[in-house]
Amino acid sequence: MTTHGVDSGFSFAVLTLSDKGSRGEREDTSGEYIQKRLAEEGFVLKSYAVVPDKQDVIIKNLIDLVDVQKISLIVTTGGTGVSPSDVTPEAMSKVIEKEVVGMAEAMRAASLLKTSRAMLSRGKVGIRGESLIVNLPGSLKAARENLEVVVPVLQHALEKIGGSTSDCGVN
Amino acid sequence: MTTHGVDSGFSFAVLTLSDKGSRGEREDTSGEYIQKRLAEEGFVLKSYAVVPDKQDVIIKNLIDLVDVQKISLIVTTGGTGVSPSDVTPEAMSKVIEKEVVGMAEAMRAASLLKTSRAMLSRGKVGIRGESLIVNLPGSLKAARENLEVVVPVLQHALEKIGGSTSDCGVN
Amino acid sequence: MTTHGVDSGFSFAVLTLSDKGSRGEREDTSGEYIQKRLAEEGFVLKSYAVVPDKQDVIIKNLIDLVDVQKISLIVTTGGTGVSPSDVTPEAMSKVIEKEVVGMAEAMRAASLLKTSRAMLSRGKVGIRGESLIVNLPGSLKAARENLEVVVPVLQHALEKIGGSTSDCGVN
Repeated sequence: MTTHGVDSGFSFAVLTLSDKGSRGEREDTSGEYIQKRLAEEGFVLKSYAVVPDKQDVIIKNLIDLVDVQKISLIVTTGGTGVSPSDVTPEAMSKVIEKEVVGMAEAMRAASLLKTSRAMLSRGKVGIRGESLIVNLPGSLKAARENLEVVVPVLQHALEKIGGSTSDCGVN
Repeated sequence: MTTHGVDSGFSFAVLTLSDKGSRGEREDTSGEYIQKRLAEEGFVLKSYAVVPDKQDVIIKNLIDLVDVQKISLIVTTGGTGVSPSDVTPEAMSKVIEKEVVGMAEAMRAASLLKTSRAMLSRGKVGIRGESLIVNLPGSLKAARENLEVVVPVLQHALEKIGGSTSDCGVN
Repeated sequence: MTTHGVDSGFSFAVLTLSDKGSRGEREDTSGEYIQKRLAEEGFVLKSYAVVPDKQDVIIKNLIDLVDVQKISLIVTTGGTGVSPSDVTPEAMSKVIEKEVVGMAEAMRAASLLKTSRAMLSRGKVGIRGESLIVNLPGSLKAARENLEVVVPVLQHALEKIGGSTSDCGVN
């Protein structure tokens, strides 16, 4: 139940970054959860894919979702840790035009109350064109916790990013 | 009342970034508040302007305040959100030589206790030459809350930035 | 006493950045403390040096410790503040390939509970090759407090950075 759910209408995409997932060797529970949760909030799923967590693949997919498909909200899951294969933040740096560092800080701060390992999460949040891109961790538990932190501001953020000129009371 | 107020003497400027404000269509309550509050702390107002929130205008004004006018503390208000017109952080990236990311983190963390929308505030804090530049949000309420977070460290920060070699006990 | 201490075996280096220290004019209490504390955790000291806090010196030393000496964990102390001589974060930006911003955020957030001056600490944490580099402040008190914040995740982080593929439950 949300107050703004039904009539929000902003489109969203889920992009799961996982080598194993892209080969069908691992069920994408995080990606499925994110789809369900954002639909509950009234956002409309337009794209879902599981791709290898290679930097050029991530960049290509994000740019396509924003520039070609014009999707308002893109949520990625995976590739935010400190392993050699974790390159989502580096791909983000090459795709986003503005960083919304406070959303990433808020997600990490909330997760840190539950586990010290949250400080190893390197996900970014940023704006490209009129789209917001949010990196979530790959594990279902962490993705779910992080998503709840940003859900309350998504609708407002997308309205502002799209050019709404109503005063937002904060910025 | 402050203990260090009267004899501090560091100069400061307030730069309000607002299209409406620069056309005289909106009273600059935030800019006026910041002037009053910093004067209370013993800082000396040297410059106040309301300019359009265009990236090149912001860059030009900040560089002039630091390089030409040699003002110690520059506080901006506005342009820190996620709207297409909000480009203060992007201008900052081109002006500052060192980022003081902890001051921006501290402001957001404090604001986040009051409203989740604080995570959309993208203000930066940084050093250019011997000047400290602090971005505050545009709304009076948010600017006031954010300013209170950094006020306790401004005098010490300006002394260190200016080259004081006394041990600071932290860094 | 640690559960993973004895058999961890990851190598570490301590690099103290201090003009006075490098001239023998100041005892390096922070550097000595860090050596002792990490040895307690089971890490193996391979290198310790006190060098001037000049940007090119810092860069040269960090690259040597990672690329030539192949040390897993490098902890620096000093040069993280806002004085003109504090350039450790700027050197880091030129050395690290991936930033682990959450570790730096967590250290500052913890220190901020004790002193508002913690927001002036600009230390970074990052990965180069298979090494983790952590900037701590120069004062013994702040270095100790900051180190305790990251100690609980160091072993896990180094395993992941080195390519361990076990699920980490967060990222």
